[in-house]
Amino acid sequence: MTTDSPAVTVGVDFGTLSGRALVVAVEDGAELGSAVHEYTHGVVDGVLPGSGHVLPPDWALQIPQDWRDVLRFAVPRALAAAGVRAEQVVGIATDFTACTVLPALADGTPLSELPDFADRPHAYPKLWRHHAAQPEADAIVRAAEESGQDWLPRYGGKISSEWQYAKALQMLREDPEVYAATERWIEAADWIVWQLTGSENRNLCTAGYKGIHQDGRYPDAAFLASLHPDFADFTAKLEHPLSQLGAPAGKLSAQAAALTGLREGTVVAVGNVDAHVTSAAARALEPGHMLAIMGTSTCHIMNSDVLGEVPGMCGVVRDGVVPGLWGYEAGQSGVGDILAWAVRTAAPHEYAAEARREGVSVHELLTRKAASQPVGGHGLVALDWHSGNRSVLVDHHLSGLIVGLTLDTRPEDIYRALVEATAFGTRTIIEAFEESGVPVGEFTAAGGLLKNAFLMQTYSDVLGRPINLLASEQGPALGAAIHAAVAAGEYPDIRSASEAMGRIERAVYVPDPERAAAYDLLYAEYRTLHDHFGRGGNEVMHRLRALRTAREA
Amino acid sequence: MTTDSPAVTVGVDFGTLSGRALVVAVEDGAELGSAVHEYTHGVVDGVLPGSGHVLPPDWALQIPQDWRDVLRFAVPRALAAAGVRAEQVVGIATDFTACTVLPALADGTPLSELPDFADRPHAYPKLWRHHAAQPEADAIVRAAEESGQDWLPRYGGKISSEWQYAKALQMLREDPEVYAATERWIEAADWIVWQLTGSENRNLCTAGYKGIHQDGRYPDAAFLASLHPDFADFTAKLEHPLSQLGAPAGKLSAQAAALTGLREGTVVAVGNVDAHVTSAAARALEPGHMLAIMGTSTCHIMNSDVLGEVPGMCGVVRDGVVPGLWGYEAGQSGVGDILAWAVRTAAPHEYAAEARREGVSVHELLTRKAASQPVGGHGLVALDWHSGNRSVLVDHHLSGLIVGLTLDTRPEDIYRALVEATAFGTRTIIEAFEESGVPVGEFTAAGGLLKNAFLMQTYSDVLGRPINLLASEQGPALGAAIHAAVAAGEYPDIRSASEAMGRIERAVYVPDPERAAAYDLLYAEYRTLHDHFGRGGNEVMHRLRALRTAREA
Repeated sequence: MTTDSPAVTVGVDFGTLSGRALVVAVEDGAELGSAVHEYTHGVVDGVLPGSGHVLPPDWALQIPQDWRDVLRFAVPRALAAAGVRAEQVVGIATDFTACTVLPALADGTPLSELPDFADRPHAYPKLWRHHAAQPEADAIVRAAEESGQDWLPRYGGKISSEWQYAKALQMLREDPEVYAATERWIEAADWIVWQLTGSENRNLCTAGYKGIHQDGRYPDAAFLASLHPDFADFTAKLEHPLSQLGAPAGKLSAQAAALTGLREGTVVAVGNVDAHVTSAAARALEPGHMLAIMGTSTCHIMNSDVLGEVPGMCGVVRDGVVPGLWGYEAGQSGVGDILAWAVRTAAPHEYAAEARREGVSVHELLTRKAASQPVGGHGLVALDWHSGNRSVLVDHHLSGLIVGLTLDTRPEDIYRALVEATAFGTRTIIEAFEESGVPVGEFTAAGGLLKNAFLMQTYSDVLGRPINLLASEQGPALGAAIHAAVAAGEYPDIRSASEAMGRIERAVYVPDPERAAAYDLLYAEYRTLHDHFGRGGNEVMHRLRALRTAREA
Repeated sequence: MTTDSPAVTVGVDFGTLSGRALVVAVEDGAELGSAVHEYTHGVVDGVLPGSGHVLPPDWALQIPQDWRDVLRFAVPRALAAAGVRAEQVVGIATDFTACTVLPALADGTPLSELPDFADRPHAYPKLWRHHAAQPEADAIVRAAEESGQDWLPRYGGKISSEWQYAKALQMLREDPEVYAATERWIEAADWIVWQLTGSENRNLCTAGYKGIHQDGRYPDAAFLASLHPDFADFTAKLEHPLSQLGAPAGKLSAQAAALTGLREGTVVAVGNVDAHVTSAAARALEPGHMLAIMGTSTCHIMNSDVLGEVPGMCGVVRDGVVPGLWGYEAGQSGVGDILAWAVRTAAPHEYAAEARREGVSVHELLTRKAASQPVGGHGLVALDWHSGNRSVLVDHHLSGLIVGLTLDTRPEDIYRALVEATAFGTRTIIEAFEESGVPVGEFTAAGGLLKNAFLMQTYSDVLGRPINLLASEQGPALGAAIHAAVAAGEYPDIRSASEAMGRIERAVYVPDPERAAAYDLLYAEYRTLHDHFGRGGNEVMHRLRALRTAREA
């Protein structure tokens, strides 16, 4: 290869509503070109396409062809935008939302694509945010507690309704025919790789975080049988050798080459998850370096050489982010979406008009009005639980609270209190890690909320830590492209590839000592309320939710 | 007097921003005509007129000439509107906001009208909502607790910063010259009567509720000296025989006759308070009949033949509402103003536009959207403490709280939760009376919030009681006119005059058993939060307020 045609890789990031392909220089990670393809069907949560079947509440499905279309449209367009030829592409890698999981035949055909099952909702991929398997998740946790399953503490004591076992058990309970026809129960992260290489491959990351694979095995048949007699052999639908992240999964098939415009035989990396792969893009892979991907919700990813049982973490998986370390995941279920709630609920007429006049968003207007206040000036403390609490309480039936309201409380006060509450939520998570013997060193942020400088400064002040930023707007796709370079043998491992191709700006925000001290006081108030309402002092949130649910029924 | 020219009385109601005169038929209370005069200076809380003197925060003054102008303009206009001649007017009575109090010379001249004192803020009448005497109120309560003053339980254990002693002590501490020049410290309710008759008269009602006059005496000199050495003889500025409500205070002077267009010698009734006088208008005078005057805040007035120590009541005064009974007063510091806060804070752009399209107020729109919900459907509970809690906690440093927020919470949900919270606040007060051995029978509502039928129905459901309405929009002025008829000898006492001239519609709202049962659940949640945040379980509201105050300083 000459310097005129440097080696590149392609990272393809499959999100909730669209997929993005990014072409990246292997040498330095320069982003050469990208393209986005919006899913034709987006999130299927109303009516099943073609069948008129109305889905129950909390369902969220997707259509596999929408994902193939990303390969078909976004990849060639990204190559064109980058001005590179297929010959320059040494590898391709993908990352996906998770747990997004589907039932397939042994050859990888999604059941939803079989005419017999086209009108059966359970035959379709269940998107990560399909939340209808809560009874099954509850049953799994109860049974695991009763039988003392040793993997339960690896998940902070809770198995999510979003994950593989809960979603599969729901399928078995509600549509046993589809369950019986399911030969493979596979993460979309692995299914998309199968589309590229033509053969099944499974990655350690989703198996660990979403598939309860720990210490080399899945939950045993006796446990599964305790959930449902026909669930005993469920693991057979999963069993397959698991590949290390950054390894090659295979070579691009002729069919996939035709689809993407890449050369047959191009190296395809093992599948991965959008959040986890972003750590490589952010050069946040060393032990104790926490990455927070901050958008509508926040996901925290951190490697450690220590295995600890952190209360309320989403999971800890050996080799789950990079080979050789324990990969931790934690999360806050509501962050940006709580601020969006404030904008649509507590931003009056005059504010909307002012924002229009000034040519800014209402978010920006509220931020500007809130930013100049002294810490504590609004007299408020909020709990950021509008969509429940993932870490550290793992309780999706909690709800938001705000205290300190007066007749003088303004919309910007509420907005600021909510920003602060999400920062307090992050601090609670960091403290839970440290109190569990898993030290947290550097803190790096990525995601859509980076554009709010006031919010980022508030996080720095509340955490009392400098905040680094991922210096790319395409974090997941860049992370995937880095994995592609490793799979192609351009770097010996993910960490060295990340060092060369990833992008981090260090200490972009540093705490102001005076504000940090004032926030210590407010954080103490937050924690008192957090423990009172979140740990049984007053179960009012659960009772109010039960009453609301009963009224809706 | 012939049937062509029936006897009438004039009631004059002095409010916060304006005064209203109402001409009423003695026979049946028919409202024949009325007129309003807006005070030229309204509430003086920014700059002292004519002097450029900027008032500190929490100050609120008024100008005596504004009150005289009500007599001068509104009374003759009301007579004209009613089409009655001065000869038909058998009596005039007034009611006033309280405690609105001023320093005067021995002849009744307000100190503020003396050139030497025109630029001294303490020489002016302090409006009821002057809140700058909180340190003095705190000192009075502390000293009363320490010396075991037996009058303290008559005020629910607290003396308000709004009342005569706190305001006078502030004057002494901050401007001893004005204090020394004060020959009479007099309620505006009595001062206005002085303007009508030409001689000083003092009523039992304000002396009892605002002047700590109990069992025939004011606090003693030893107690007053403990507050400030020069305060020992303060009572000399108050001492004067106290008149029973409904009694004549005197006859209209020639000067006042010229001012009002009434005949010299017309009977003038003893002064009274706007809330208390409304009980007569509502025929809510029998023991255990509670009247709630519901506006920006709510005032509860009730007679009883029992003397009880109700926690957090504003006061209990023998003969305080009608002779021969114990008159109780309690209150909620924020009701309508909390709903106004919701409208200006949590009613977004689209709602304002919808209200405009439909030609309704945003209050009406939110009410309409909220009204059809099942009880508990919004999943929220609020504490109605945005401007503190008067009864039963007597803590103005508490603040509002809302719990149960989700991403689906809408502005109408918040509005409804706040309506409900104020109803829970009323229920808390009623229960405090009953638990103190003071039974509550009928419940009658008056005031501006009557126009919101959903709110009234919610109160009925929450209280589990029928709600009567005062069937007049001029409650205080009608109540004053009833007192005028008694003073003029047209009726033997207030109760019989009220029976003939007052107006009540009984059981306009009755509780729905199903909603009432559901509200019992929400009320239990309210009470748990009420006691936790209001009685020391978590003093976060006080700490947040202190932090806010420190930041503002």
